[in-house]
Amino acid sequence: MTENRRLVLARRPVGVVQDDDFEMLVEPVPEAGAGQFLIRNCWLSFDPAQRGWMNDVPSYIPPVQLGEPMRAMGVGQIVASHHPDFPEGAMVSGGFGWQDYVLSDGKDAFGVRVLPPGAPPTAALGVFGTTGLTAYFGLLDVGRPKEGDVVLVSGAAGATGSVVGQIAKIKGCQTIGIAGGPDKCTWLKDTVGFDEVIDYKNEDVAARIRELAPKGVNVFFDNIGGEILDAGLGNIAQGGTIVLCGGISSGYTLEEQPPGPRNVFMLTVRSARMEGFIVLNYAQRFGEGIAQLAEWVTEGKIIYAEDIQHGLENAPATLRRLFEGKNFGKQILEIAQPEG
Amino acid sequence: MTENRRLVLARRPVGVVQDDDFEMLVEPVPEAGAGQFLIRNCWLSFDPAQRGWMNDVPSYIPPVQLGEPMRAMGVGQIVASHHPDFPEGAMVSGGFGWQDYVLSDGKDAFGVRVLPPGAPPTAALGVFGTTGLTAYFGLLDVGRPKEGDVVLVSGAAGATGSVVGQIAKIKGCQTIGIAGGPDKCTWLKDTVGFDEVIDYKNEDVAARIRELAPKGVNVFFDNIGGEILDAGLGNIAQGGTIVLCGGISSGYTLEEQPPGPRNVFMLTVRSARMEGFIVLNYAQRFGEGIAQLAEWVTEGKIIYAEDIQHGLENAPATLRRLFEGKNFGKQILEIAQPEG
Repeated sequence: MTENRRLVLARRPVGVVQDDDFEMLVEPVPEAGAGQFLIRNCWLSFDPAQRGWMNDVPSYIPPVQLGEPMRAMGVGQIVASHHPDFPEGAMVSGGFGWQDYVLSDGKDAFGVRVLPPGAPPTAALGVFGTTGLTAYFGLLDVGRPKEGDVVLVSGAAGATGSVVGQIAKIKGCQTIGIAGGPDKCTWLKDTVGFDEVIDYKNEDVAARIRELAPKGVNVFFDNIGGEILDAGLGNIAQGGTIVLCGGISSGYTLEEQPPGPRNVFMLTVRSARMEGFIVLNYAQRFGEGIAQLAEWVTEGKIIYAEDIQHGLENAPATLRRLFEGKNFGKQILEIAQPEG
Repeated sequence: MTENRRLVLARRPVGVVQDDDFEMLVEPVPEAGAGQFLIRNCWLSFDPAQRGWMNDVPSYIPPVQLGEPMRAMGVGQIVASHHPDFPEGAMVSGGFGWQDYVLSDGKDAFGVRVLPPGAPPTAALGVFGTTGLTAYFGLLDVGRPKEGDVVLVSGAAGATGSVVGQIAKIKGCQTIGIAGGPDKCTWLKDTVGFDEVIDYKNEDVAARIRELAPKGVNVFFDNIGGEILDAGLGNIAQGGTIVLCGGISSGYTLEEQPPGPRNVFMLTVRSARMEGFIVLNYAQRFGEGIAQLAEWVTEGKIIYAEDIQHGLENAPATLRRLFEGKNFGKQILEIAQPEG
């Protein structure tokens, strides 16, 4: 391939992303200069927070600029290199964005890491990437569950939620997962190992939480926000904790935000804590997290699912899958296969 | 006086309390038996949370039962005693309720404490009572401000809020108070010593917070909830804390709750914490809190205001004052004066 397709942000999306919020540029493949290396992007990571990065508002990282390729973590292969630490042929992960090729000097905002041999490369985007690390630090550092605690997880069939439930189980907690539809719920209970599941599409979430956790929820890891957050707040235990990992129900848009949770007063009544976090806060400790997650995966204590779509031109549609609840585990887009 | 007037809960209030939600019973003054003592109730304490105690819902303390005198902290004088620790003539504080006289054995749910001589007895309901202790433990133990932090306080002219601002000042913080109307705001700035004030009746609260705290609010002590909580959430600093002390904007009723705060997602964006508490959690440490508050009051570092109404029959109207924003400092009702 001699072309570099780059899917750039053409306008600020309103609500759900549309295909024509982006424009496909076709440029020559760039050449690596001194101290640089060229990456062939193979797999792209999709995360709900990416939708928020398209809004032109100050946040924890700068918004994606119009005309720039959409920002995303990726895994690729080095196809040319003038950098001793990044040899040709090596598989690497970093913030490679929606494009076929990317030049790097290894000093990008998200860094570039050479993947250890052995593990499947896509795992660097999921269980050993930001989603697994979000589960690890969010549950253990922010949620801080104790053995025997009831841990409730929303978005439980997602890449982060499914790992949260498994870490909670490793720590001796009773786990309840919330997901949409019988397929996801069956997978969570039979394969992932949640103790109990709630199908938000077919059950009264608040009533089911009350039934499954009559003494209240000690730690609620919430990926959803909106009504599901409210249902968890209404059933929080004395001294309980709500970990806010994001709120996919908001769509991460600037429009039509859902009403806030009415049950916030329960934080006072139950002397409870609700705390948000961004996984980048823990960048200094990613090594620790990845090592522990790798151990658990090797021991078979954590399993993970990947939902792999194909073709760079399908990137906007792949992002939409997250907000439509279509993904089963980590949402990934394959745009090429590594060589050799 | 040979009569004991008792203002009992006659029906569950809907919305704001009405006078005829209560019934005035007139009974003979009870006589103290062995191990008992009789208290002449002199001053009653009014707190927003009392409205919540009238609702027939499970909460951190049982609801007041129909036919029972409304529950309230009070200060009174012992007028007859068969208990060695509680001598006749002593001033005491406890959960004496809306009635002229109350029998006790000293083992009531809220306990009975003999007041130290010297301090004005009503201070036991305010700055040395649950309101001052709420400020002390809520700000220092839950909020944990550091020197130089921006501390925002809503309900700043209330009994708790005004003490929160002064403790924050003692700890070297920059203080911003939110209150309703120019009189309260002038008092907060000129007498209480807040660095800045926001008049929520006449100013755009969110815009003013942004202006006064361009780098965000490090600790927000919120007594109000609703839109004011939302404005504070929208301006929380990275790693900031919101202390939820209650939410008077809810009216503490079961009806017409205000929408929840839409800006809850800011907890994630700013890695911030929102935590509720009940002062009774700190019962074991009340002695420490009172000693420190007394030292600050003696040194002139904390001043406090009292709003004293008169007559037991005016108890419902006095409670309403809190929800109408009429009180200036601690809301108290005088129903008798101690003798001697």
